Amino acid sequence: MAHTITPPDTVRVARADLTAFCTRLFVSLGLSPADAAVAADVLVAADARGIPSHGLARLPSYVNGITTGATVPDARPEVIAETPATLAVDAHGGMGAPASAEAMRRIIAKARTAGAAIACVRDSNHFGIAGYYAMLALEHDMIGLAMTNTAALGVPTFGRQVMFGTNPIAFAAPAGRERAFVLDMSTTVVTKGKLEVYERLGQPLPDGWAVDRSGRSATDPHRILDEMFRRAGGGMLPLGGEGELHGGYKGYGLAVMVDILCGVLGAAAFGPGLADNPTCFGRVSHFFAAFDVAAFRDVAGFKADMDRMLSDLRASPLAEGAERIYVAGEKEFEREAKYARDGVPLLRQTYDQAIEIGRLHGVAGLPRAAAG
Amino acid sequence: MAHTITPPDTVRVARADLTAFCTRLFVSLGLSPADAAVAADVLVAADARGIPSHGLARLPSYVNGITTGATVPDARPEVIAETPATLAVDAHGGMGAPASAEAMRRIIAKARTAGAAIACVRDSNHFGIAGYYAMLALEHDMIGLAMTNTAALGVPTFGRQVMFGTNPIAFAAPAGRERAFVLDMSTTVVTKGKLEVYERLGQPLPDGWAVDRSGRSATDPHRILDEMFRRAGGGMLPLGGEGELHGGYKGYGLAVMVDILCGVLGAAAFGPGLADNPTCFGRVSHFFAAFDVAAFRDVAGFKADMDRMLSDLRASPLAEGAERIYVAGEKEFEREAKYARDGVPLLRQTYDQAIEIGRLHGVAGLPRAAAG
Repeated sequence: MAHTITPPDTVRVARADLTAFCTRLFVSLGLSPADAAVAADVLVAADARGIPSHGLARLPSYVNGITTGATVPDARPEVIAETPATLAVDAHGGMGAPASAEAMRRIIAKARTAGAAIACVRDSNHFGIAGYYAMLALEHDMIGLAMTNTAALGVPTFGRQVMFGTNPIAFAAPAGRERAFVLDMSTTVVTKGKLEVYERLGQPLPDGWAVDRSGRSATDPHRILDEMFRRAGGGMLPLGGEGELHGGYKGYGLAVMVDILCGVLGAAAFGPGLADNPTCFGRVSHFFAAFDVAAFRDVAGFKADMDRMLSDLRASPLAEGAERIYVAGEKEFEREAKYARDGVPLLRQTYDQAIEIGRLHGVAGLPRAAAG
Repeated sequence: MAHTITPPDTVRVARADLTAFCTRLFVSLGLSPADAAVAADVLVAADARGIPSHGLARLPSYVNGITTGATVPDARPEVIAETPATLAVDAHGGMGAPASAEAMRRIIAKARTAGAAIACVRDSNHFGIAGYYAMLALEHDMIGLAMTNTAALGVPTFGRQVMFGTNPIAFAAPAGRERAFVLDMSTTVVTKGKLEVYERLGQPLPDGWAVDRSGRSATDPHRILDEMFRRAGGGMLPLGGEGELHGGYKGYGLAVMVDILCGVLGAAAFGPGLADNPTCFGRVSHFFAAFDVAAFRDVAGFKADMDRMLSDLRASPLAEGAERIYVAGEKEFEREAKYARDGVPLLRQTYDQAIEIGRLHGVAGLPRAAAG
């Protein structure tokens, strides 16, 4: 073939091999086999759904978190408060994924009885893609919500100092013949990872993504990242952009909402007090919810309406020059299906890094998939 | 005084007089005194908090809704399903405000026991400002959420036909010495009312607010409103704007999320099937939630953290050329305090219209406030 979609610096690995490798790595770092399996499943789900920013590229941070003691590999999450429809968990500095998946499982069980339930997980660590947890509700015919606060990277409307994280919101609702609706979005215009991509490519940023230390929209990714890292000023703009003209105060408000539900409700770190350092992530907190569709209406009717809504959206008339209208989650489901056939693509740099990390921790074997 | 902030075409009325007038008007239209008082309180709260688009300017629509039979003034909301943490209400085409306030009261009571509760109100009508209902949770030391779907006015990312409403999200969280955090935002960049203001002023729209029938960002408010009204194409852009570059798919996703929680979960109208006509609003549905802070942590500690978060945000360094950093709800609280002293400003046109509507329905008296 003269043409290939896969860039030359990409390596393909079967999803099961990736998961097995990461599970063994996490066990070697001190996680229980059960916790390691969950942490690996979440991490690999990111690459397998085409969200490499949250996948194996983050292995060094996870490993450094554990080896520096910032992340406690064998922490036992503790339920610190509980009612029929709420759950408050202290992760005691453990990995984000196992504590989060367990919290979601517990509120799904509560929602089966109470109709709805919410959870807060405090003093946790990076939990990967928020959508993973929201989607755990789907097979129970429930609607799922997941949020997390993150290290401060976003500036308030009219501000120039980072005061909150990229604070994602994920929402999943089941459908019938259509795939589920799965929204998973940061509440800033873009996340830091996008700036890092532009920095590597040596390209200027689009206007309206980030501000420099003056607090005005700027386009030099290197300078913005450097100043933001040193907390000299500048950061990511909230969804809606600079100022109020296009609703920047809405993204700012949503980011603070997430910080309230995670950090403040969790009696944990929030706002600019939540920071990453060069070797590991800061302690973050999460918020989850599960709503049982059957508490409101017949599930079959709900799914039939979801099918109609989603197919109508996908089939609605295109803007001039546009190729396709997507619904939330659709791109990820399509990539997941493609990668299940062809193997999950990793940047060669990410692949080589994983091999090296495995070697350092006595974990071998990350075979490349047969050529697609 | 040589200078005045109040434009010359504004009339000031005491809030209590506005509420009394609207209550009597709604009673004359067939609402029970209790329902009329709630409907009036919500309507007047909009003007009193500086959101005139949702205040007395909408009286003609409310009245037309009732006189044409689209809104049933004496409808009795019916609880159609209930669990310890959920409530499903059929408003049977009644006014949105009384059914919504009652649903919020009921889930606050449920959350007192269950820790959290959610409600869906189906087959309802325009409920005014979403923030009103979220704020009902505050005095109970709870976090409140309120959403509603609306007539379809928004286009999906890469689309050119209206497929969902401006679908607002309101979120309120209590604080201590600081005022509560009250986010109340449409999930489109702006609402139709903003376009109508530009149309009246004969000014072009800012780029990135709306698209015309081609599906591309356009600036002629008259043409866009006309085409949108005739469903010839065009509509409001979702928060994040046109295309994907600045996250337009996020606002699109949030709008659909609101439609799922309100319309689909409510087994009611959603998407483009939900339309206003020249004389009245379409039947909409709402979603509410109440989360009891005490189910997660000590309320005093929560409020102290909220105070720190909000005061830190307000005091954070300003962008060059900026005058002030606000937190969500702050502008509205300040206007409310000012208007409590000076009277609530109404456009003369709105005031005259209210007087005329009152005259037609045998309700007199809307005295102007003494000059401030």
